[in-house]
Amino acid sequence: MNFICDNINKNDVSHLTFAGLDTVELAKEYGTPLYLLDVDRVREKCRLYISSLKKHLGDNVLPLYASKALSFVGIYRVLKEENMGIDVVSGGEFYTALKAGFPSDKVYFHGNNKTDSELKFAIDNNIGCIVVDNLNELNFVDEYCNKISKKQKILLRVTPGIDPHTFKAVVTGNVDSKFGFAIETGQAEKITIEILKKKNVDFYGYHCHIGSQIFDSEPFYDAAKIMTGFIANMQDKYGINVRELNLGGGIGVRYVEDQPCLDIDTILGEIATHIKNACLEAKIDIPRILIEPGRSIVADSGMTLYTCGGLKEITGYKKYLPIDGGMSDNPRYALYQAEYTVYNASRIDDSADTVCDVVGKCCESGDIIQENVSIAFPKKGDIIAVCTTGAYNYSMASNYNKIPRPPIVGISNGTAEILVKRESYEDLISNEL
Amino acid sequence: MNFICDNINKNDVSHLTFAGLDTVELAKEYGTPLYLLDVDRVREKCRLYISSLKKHLGDNVLPLYASKALSFVGIYRVLKEENMGIDVVSGGEFYTALKAGFPSDKVYFHGNNKTDSELKFAIDNNIGCIVVDNLNELNFVDEYCNKISKKQKILLRVTPGIDPHTFKAVVTGNVDSKFGFAIETGQAEKITIEILKKKNVDFYGYHCHIGSQIFDSEPFYDAAKIMTGFIANMQDKYGINVRELNLGGGIGVRYVEDQPCLDIDTILGEIATHIKNACLEAKIDIPRILIEPGRSIVADSGMTLYTCGGLKEITGYKKYLPIDGGMSDNPRYALYQAEYTVYNASRIDDSADTVCDVVGKCCESGDIIQENVSIAFPKKGDIIAVCTTGAYNYSMASNYNKIPRPPIVGISNGTAEILVKRESYEDLISNEL
Repeated sequence: MNFICDNINKNDVSHLTFAGLDTVELAKEYGTPLYLLDVDRVREKCRLYISSLKKHLGDNVLPLYASKALSFVGIYRVLKEENMGIDVVSGGEFYTALKAGFPSDKVYFHGNNKTDSELKFAIDNNIGCIVVDNLNELNFVDEYCNKISKKQKILLRVTPGIDPHTFKAVVTGNVDSKFGFAIETGQAEKITIEILKKKNVDFYGYHCHIGSQIFDSEPFYDAAKIMTGFIANMQDKYGINVRELNLGGGIGVRYVEDQPCLDIDTILGEIATHIKNACLEAKIDIPRILIEPGRSIVADSGMTLYTCGGLKEITGYKKYLPIDGGMSDNPRYALYQAEYTVYNASRIDDSADTVCDVVGKCCESGDIIQENVSIAFPKKGDIIAVCTTGAYNYSMASNYNKIPRPPIVGISNGTAEILVKRESYEDLISNEL
Repeated sequence: MNFICDNINKNDVSHLTFAGLDTVELAKEYGTPLYLLDVDRVREKCRLYISSLKKHLGDNVLPLYASKALSFVGIYRVLKEENMGIDVVSGGEFYTALKAGFPSDKVYFHGNNKTDSELKFAIDNNIGCIVVDNLNELNFVDEYCNKISKKQKILLRVTPGIDPHTFKAVVTGNVDSKFGFAIETGQAEKITIEILKKKNVDFYGYHCHIGSQIFDSEPFYDAAKIMTGFIANMQDKYGINVRELNLGGGIGVRYVEDQPCLDIDTILGEIATHIKNACLEAKIDIPRILIEPGRSIVADSGMTLYTCGGLKEITGYKKYLPIDGGMSDNPRYALYQAEYTVYNASRIDDSADTVCDVVGKCCESGDIIQENVSIAFPKKGDIIAVCTTGAYNYSMASNYNKIPRPPIVGISNGTAEILVKRESYEDLISNEL
């Protein structure tokens, strides 16, 4: 039996295993719903990104983990140990990283609408780089740095005008976007000119992000070509020394069988070749290259375990498999009709001959985890595993229906430990007067 | 100038007012993003539901506030004072109500997949009624009550097979649903027979819920007709005394100008006539009638205030109005393309001639509050009011992007007070080890 990811297997009591441990036993010990995180795999991915980037592009590279995929104190400790950089998209993410002792100089601050107080907080805490989105932000950073006699490293976010053919909600690289300004409209150049007038910022270069769940290197080539052409143009026209090019994230992750399992070293090699060719074509030196993997580091390092409430069959219609979580811990099907692979972890050797919708316990018809799943007949009490939930599950979780958020249990070297505690009923009302 | 709801107005400094108070001043005092709740209006709606139901159907009625729309300790205190019943959909909602001293005998427990521990918690805390969804739940309730020598009042959730032509995500009354069992398939009758065999439950009757955002009484007539016909059939066949009929919620709320503003007394009068006619037709006495307003009590009692980060115009494309919140405090546009009315609260007398998308600060293109809004030109720092956010905003809020959830400030008799505190960065990581 082939599982969706190679950290998933089965054992001799016909239970599903994850990172080597029996998921049914984990569910018994920690309760459900339960987020699992294969910490060894997170580390392995970090090492792969660093070594592969260095192999293909030399030492002047840094992968930044995109925090928004999964942000909690413990993961920043791991990222620090693995010598990763990170990007954050809010004061809250930066705060969390700082609490883990993550070095602030390796933090890049993104966002289309950073508030003044977030920018102050970031600058006061010596954030490595602010990726400036717009003129208001640039003005605020320059004025505040002037006030406190500081020079802040910045990048400028631009949109290269590429549609990588993915979900509408996660396409960000095309011209019409709430993020940055487009090269095509001349606005990226205009704001570059504004930056050059500022005395309190140290302008390092440009950032772009073309989208998510991209499975081939072609869109990255397009991005590299447009970005290096733009850099050459800006260097020629304004004598800027562009020292960094941040190409964002977007490397695709396999959620279901019909998606490819990308070899990260191979795709990074292709992307690196594209970058080198593009720089050659544009006649510029290769700047320091940054990329921002988030989903591709944590998605398949994660799994969610639920308890089945007992199959419901509506005669003549369909079968429903209700679980003890739902859109409160994983809103991605409700938001994007996101695909997932689901197993009956309690009887993994039984034939997957029951077709059903896996539905949550929220009082809403749209609370669906996955439709038309083929699974071994689920009895009440069976443990149901939803795979590849490491990205955008904990980070998007809510208390909808006043449901406490699940804990995160990390697995490392075959040992499980709680990284995030389960929310209690008391926690739910801790701010309610 | 006509505003979308009559608790909204403007004052002589051209600021928007809500429940009589200057929203710009409220934003200054409490910060943004900020949820406002017009507590007087909540009370007024509760009184209207109670008096109108009594006027049209006599004293044997009880409106149950549907907690999931907005659940926090303070609102249950208000509901208790207003003599409302409530429904809850989780142990967490029931816990919250209990913390407010809400009388447990006026609580109905819904949900398609109540866990065993939630059912225990509910029964141990003397919940008024469990609305049984399926056989597993019925068996558990009966067995647990047998163990502790108790008889638990129950209703049975059935699906009448009605499509009220609303969003797919909120249609729950049709035959193929994760909720309850259908009359049409014979499964509702089968589970009724099972109930009659149980010694530890006191069977009071049936519950159905046909959907949300229903603007005419026709679907309720269809529901009443089917439900009373089914009740008559069950009474004839099995000699049951059906004492309660719970018709659920679904009364529509006006979010934007082209939606009607329903007169609740009028629509309840129509629904009551439908119920009486249906009972006459079915030759049954009118049972105690319960209905479950949630959205229609709190939606237009709420408003969210944001601060504008400064308009961004992508030349030749469109304008973006970025706010300091987004899908983390209001995911309803991302989930359902929900409509909202938006004002520039800081300059309400200016002509609304700027067309833009109101977008959040989350690092995701789909983080939109509303597209194509016409609004007075928004400057950085202007207060932006999104109306009718009392339902399914606080309750669905997340910490996506590690953004703290906004506070709720209640307004009563022209006085504002904090009902829910703003989350702090410390709160965000309080369970992270």
